[in-house]
Amino acid sequence: MTPGSPLTAGNSRVKDTRKLSRRSDRSERRLFLADGPRAVEGALSRAGCVVEVFATPAATEQHTDLVAAAPVWTLVDERALASLSDSVSPAGVVAVCRFLDRPLEHLLDPAPRLVALCADVRDPGNAGTVIRSADAAGADLVVMAGSSVDAYNPKTVRASVGSLFHLPLAVEPDAAAAVRAAKAAGLVVLAADGGGDIDLYDAGELLIQPTAWLFGNEAWGLPAELAALADHRVAIPIHGRAESLNLSTAAALCLYASATAQRAH
Amino acid sequence: MTPGSPLTAGNSRVKDTRKLSRRSDRSERRLFLADGPRAVEGALSRAGCVVEVFATPAATEQHTDLVAAAPVWTLVDERALASLSDSVSPAGVVAVCRFLDRPLEHLLDPAPRLVALCADVRDPGNAGTVIRSADAAGADLVVMAGSSVDAYNPKTVRASVGSLFHLPLAVEPDAAAAVRAAKAAGLVVLAADGGGDIDLYDAGELLIQPTAWLFGNEAWGLPAELAALADHRVAIPIHGRAESLNLSTAAALCLYASATAQRAH
Repeated sequence: MTPGSPLTAGNSRVKDTRKLSRRSDRSERRLFLADGPRAVEGALSRAGCVVEVFATPAATEQHTDLVAAAPVWTLVDERALASLSDSVSPAGVVAVCRFLDRPLEHLLDPAPRLVALCADVRDPGNAGTVIRSADAAGADLVVMAGSSVDAYNPKTVRASVGSLFHLPLAVEPDAAAAVRAAKAAGLVVLAADGGGDIDLYDAGELLIQPTAWLFGNEAWGLPAELAALADHRVAIPIHGRAESLNLSTAAALCLYASATAQRAH
Repeated sequence: MTPGSPLTAGNSRVKDTRKLSRRSDRSERRLFLADGPRAVEGALSRAGCVVEVFATPAATEQHTDLVAAAPVWTLVDERALASLSDSVSPAGVVAVCRFLDRPLEHLLDPAPRLVALCADVRDPGNAGTVIRSADAAGADLVVMAGSSVDAYNPKTVRASVGSLFHLPLAVEPDAAAAVRAAKAAGLVVLAADGGGDIDLYDAGELLIQPTAWLFGNEAWGLPAELAALADHRVAIPIHGRAESLNLSTAAALCLYASATAQRAH
């Protein structure tokens, strides 16, 4: 632990770290913030991810396990910590983390068995929830493609509840290129598409294959030309009068259907 | 349509309606607000639900189908409309709706086939998403039980994307009484419980029965004494390293597993 009195909000290292709340600063320095004990714990579980942890004296007393695991532990006062947190009630501990994404082609060799491929998912909470569900379903890879929200957005990190640190991540601004790469790696690409001609629960043998699920935007779904690149378009049946499902709900249903079929096989 | 110039934010009817943003006023008058064309459309699809619609002149020109369906259509200016909406970018139309819930015992006779029973679900967005998923899965009833969030909270109404108006709703402050009533009506009560001894995807024949799924709080799950009242405790398998699933995601997986099993039978 760093000795001396806690750094204040005016300290230059604190001010520098605070800039990571901006996407442009994150991208440039390939660093982001993990806020709260759960996220910090997740980050510390990923080898080489954490650069430094900032914590209040109170949080330092409380989280001795995190202190022991952190490469650098820096005391800050309450105001300085609040300036690093985007939470309304900061939990006293924030980690500076290195970006986690690796080039898609590396992560497709050898081919994974289950992939969540998000194209133009814009809501940070939804994106984080998809990452959490992908982790729970045992997916091997998450790809944030097209104009999807920044995977390192504080709201995404929080909604993933640590899962962002648990599984491989790729970022590919060209969604069509990501779909082609998945197909080239031997994956069946299934587009989650309310207008699809295959019912998820009648898909049978199809779900046993190594699969990349393609998920589109919350409001307008998948662009037709991207859905057309997929091997199949699969719809979740709507039995009641709802028009559609929430994007992250739909993603969980698709990923669990595949995980269950693959594991039963 | 009411003739004359649009009402302003200072108008007494507008001021009176604005008070429905408070839970206490909603409960006392058994009225709530549906905000935006999608919610208003849902409300108008439910016979006898809408008391009155407030809309800006621009929205009135745009939504002629809603104007035609509304019992009373009142013009308000932009500022008055914004004062009735909790949205950051109000869509110009807000409906005053009658409460939809009916006594649980009425809704359990005859016994429904698939019920979502929320106990102490506190996040308004989660509650709305559960209602949306229940509708999509073809559930026959949603019960907001225990200290669950108000089903008529504007965030819940919005997250349900119209589904609040699509299926029967009961409110039962005593969660244990709701579970007992479901069992007395002949339903199998399944508690969604990460520590449960039955795997959702190995539950087989169990899911074919008329079922009430019991969902707990986002953070602390189901109290042990409530879970113990259920016929079985069912866990969604976690294949990766996630600690748990988002509450509304878990609810959708459970409800769809039942809907699929019941329909295949």
